[in-house]
Amino acid sequence: MTQYWCELAWLGGDTATGDVLVEVEGERISAVSTGVPCPEEAVRLTGLTLPGLANAHSHAFHRALRGRTHAGTGSFWTWREQMYAVASRLTPDSYFLLARAVYGEMAMAGITAVGEFHYLHHAPGGVRYSDPNAMGAALVAAATEAGVRMTLLDTCYLHGGIGSAPNQVQLQFSDGSAGAWAERVARLAGSSTGVRVGAAVHSVRAVDPDAMRTVAEWARAHEAPLHAHVSEQPAENQQCLDAYGRTPTAVLAEAGALSDRFTAVHATHLTDADIGTYGQNHCTICMCPSTERDLADGIGPTRRLAESGARLSLGSDSHAVIDLFEEARAVELNERLTSNVRGHHTVPALLAAATRDGHACLGWPDAGALAVGQWADLVSVRLDSVRTAGVDADSALGAAVFAASAADVHHVVAGGRVVVAEGRHVVLDVAGELSRNIAAVMEGA
Amino acid sequence: MTQYWCELAWLGGDTATGDVLVEVEGERISAVSTGVPCPEEAVRLTGLTLPGLANAHSHAFHRALRGRTHAGTGSFWTWREQMYAVASRLTPDSYFLLARAVYGEMAMAGITAVGEFHYLHHAPGGVRYSDPNAMGAALVAAATEAGVRMTLLDTCYLHGGIGSAPNQVQLQFSDGSAGAWAERVARLAGSSTGVRVGAAVHSVRAVDPDAMRTVAEWARAHEAPLHAHVSEQPAENQQCLDAYGRTPTAVLAEAGALSDRFTAVHATHLTDADIGTYGQNHCTICMCPSTERDLADGIGPTRRLAESGARLSLGSDSHAVIDLFEEARAVELNERLTSNVRGHHTVPALLAAATRDGHACLGWPDAGALAVGQWADLVSVRLDSVRTAGVDADSALGAAVFAASAADVHHVVAGGRVVVAEGRHVVLDVAGELSRNIAAVMEGA
Repeated sequence: MTQYWCELAWLGGDTATGDVLVEVEGERISAVSTGVPCPEEAVRLTGLTLPGLANAHSHAFHRALRGRTHAGTGSFWTWREQMYAVASRLTPDSYFLLARAVYGEMAMAGITAVGEFHYLHHAPGGVRYSDPNAMGAALVAAATEAGVRMTLLDTCYLHGGIGSAPNQVQLQFSDGSAGAWAERVARLAGSSTGVRVGAAVHSVRAVDPDAMRTVAEWARAHEAPLHAHVSEQPAENQQCLDAYGRTPTAVLAEAGALSDRFTAVHATHLTDADIGTYGQNHCTICMCPSTERDLADGIGPTRRLAESGARLSLGSDSHAVIDLFEEARAVELNERLTSNVRGHHTVPALLAAATRDGHACLGWPDAGALAVGQWADLVSVRLDSVRTAGVDADSALGAAVFAASAADVHHVVAGGRVVVAEGRHVVLDVAGELSRNIAAVMEGA
Repeated sequence: MTQYWCELAWLGGDTATGDVLVEVEGERISAVSTGVPCPEEAVRLTGLTLPGLANAHSHAFHRALRGRTHAGTGSFWTWREQMYAVASRLTPDSYFLLARAVYGEMAMAGITAVGEFHYLHHAPGGVRYSDPNAMGAALVAAATEAGVRMTLLDTCYLHGGIGSAPNQVQLQFSDGSAGAWAERVARLAGSSTGVRVGAAVHSVRAVDPDAMRTVAEWARAHEAPLHAHVSEQPAENQQCLDAYGRTPTAVLAEAGALSDRFTAVHATHLTDADIGTYGQNHCTICMCPSTERDLADGIGPTRRLAESGARLSLGSDSHAVIDLFEEARAVELNERLTSNVRGHHTVPALLAAATRDGHACLGWPDAGALAVGQWADLVSVRLDSVRTAGVDADSALGAAVFAASAADVHHVVAGGRVVVAEGRHVVLDVAGELSRNIAAVMEGA
């Protein structure tokens, strides 16, 4: 049993609580008590301790593009060409090394679970690896070594666009049919500790309604999370309306995809009916604000979605930055930019998106809270850095959401294991591995 | 003479240059050579070296509110009440201590010059200090001790609104008349090394057109920078239109305020004519994106302003964050959010706003570039942190603007003096001073 004593901790309320003792047995929290002086044998966590953060939408290999594409002109679609060029150069070995470093960066940012929206299944030209799940297995191994729990959202990706065949790069993504996708996924090893398998529909562009139905049925049969990119770009909506006479949300609904296990990623350009649909179905919406502004997607209707009954989660997606505090505050601040009014989402609501609801949408309903029986994920945030210095107990939660950065994450415990201590990953030289492995991948560029 | 050898440096072009030797004599750069191996006696700056960053708009005392107000509801106007409460508790002594820590945080973020938009002139109730410039002198001393050059933008603030008297707190801001403002400013000590005095018109709310004319004449006679808050809020525009039948920009123009020494701060809600006016007069526009999104101001038309011929500079304003990389990228990324297209401002243009054009609008045309005769300001940015790792020489500038944070600033030389070494301020315990001095100020809250 290990004891962690937290100077301040967020137990789910409107403010932080002082002098909190969290006891951990194995990978779970066994007791939480408040108003307790620090026992001698306890690990002392200064600053503010939060539950583990969940990064609900990741494409790990996009990290290689950080700093290289943001200055570009054009749109999402021109950016996609650069991203495809990296995809075509990855192998299971090189992707393992790259992803391990990326998940290491996530751990250092306080992320204890990641949803990897994984569609880079096959070798160039669509050639199958001898283990057809070699890429997914590499990602699972990478997350495990980095100390981050993973939900592998194995993604069905069949078409280059509605009614068109996959291009040369997209052949690496495609299983050929939803049936083949399901067969491959069936061969994924059963879930081990800290690893879950979920499903994803890449988008209405890449998956037709019949195939969607197959994926949704698989997710239902396995009680697994089901994610999909939805309405990130107006062009996608238009193509969908032209082909099916309804919005992407309506197409997904008709295919039986929507439920409380469904997460719509981005959901930027929605109709009123779409918003109502997500609320009625108790879906989660995963916002990725730093990517959405980088790719000029626009600002999604997060307030109206939350009011409709949908839950929100957060993702760093293309990893322009990996900083869930930045994502959380952007949800509120983007609404301010469009409305000229403050106060759309409360601080506890933004923290819930980063923690409890993020974990829940990845199939970890037993994580993201400092409570008995939950996964023992603790993230301490410094309140004595130049960014956070000057706050008091009453303002600590607001400071974490609106002023802290990933650089303020000091100590991270994930599933009972210390992953980051004093701002350093306990196993990996994360920055060095990022440098080496990105250089290796980009060399042929 | 000190030599600094830079692994990579930005010399003003589209990409960084390798192996740059910068020689410094006293407070100026005496030589810059490229393609030079590192001399034994040189200080070696790894990563990317930039010219000093200029923070063109600061209200130092707002730093006390970081983390405490962002979660609020309401608007700019409700936030202002909280800000006034802090203003009413400051004395020259306590403001000196607070500001020194805030400028220390700026130094650690690579800022070598600050424009302090200073209107907190008097004691509670408007009582004059025995030295009527005691507050301004405290700010100058604070910046000097923190190692940051200062332009004290001494601000004229007379009215509580158009046609209304100052309220109780605003009495601390008001000199009673523009003539009294000019008399007080005349008593400010002459400029010493690293300190300049400029003028500011708080806003059309606080300064009537006749008073504006007096301030503009003072600035012209002294060839000094002149700044003003302009069109931050739609309500301000409406009040101005109601009172004067023209926009704030047009009122300022008619008062003779606009020239290439004029900087409009925020300039969020402009007409087409306003934009043209700023271009024709070669004015600078100081954007403060992190504050503008916090206060729900909106997104200013930066692309159209730049196209009109206006220059851009950057400010951290209310210090919700102090990170000019974050401000620089937000100028581009906010345009993406409104247009759904990428590529409005180039990386060199965004860097120029953070460096050369920022310094110029503060009256330092001889700073903000790594070139002979310029102030010896050098800022090294780590390219081996988890945020920046993986970039190469070609992508270094893009990474600095789009991926780096203030936490990546490693070494700062300002006016030939080392101010920050290995990420630490060489004189001040900045985080500790922020904690102590903010607590002292907030105690009576």
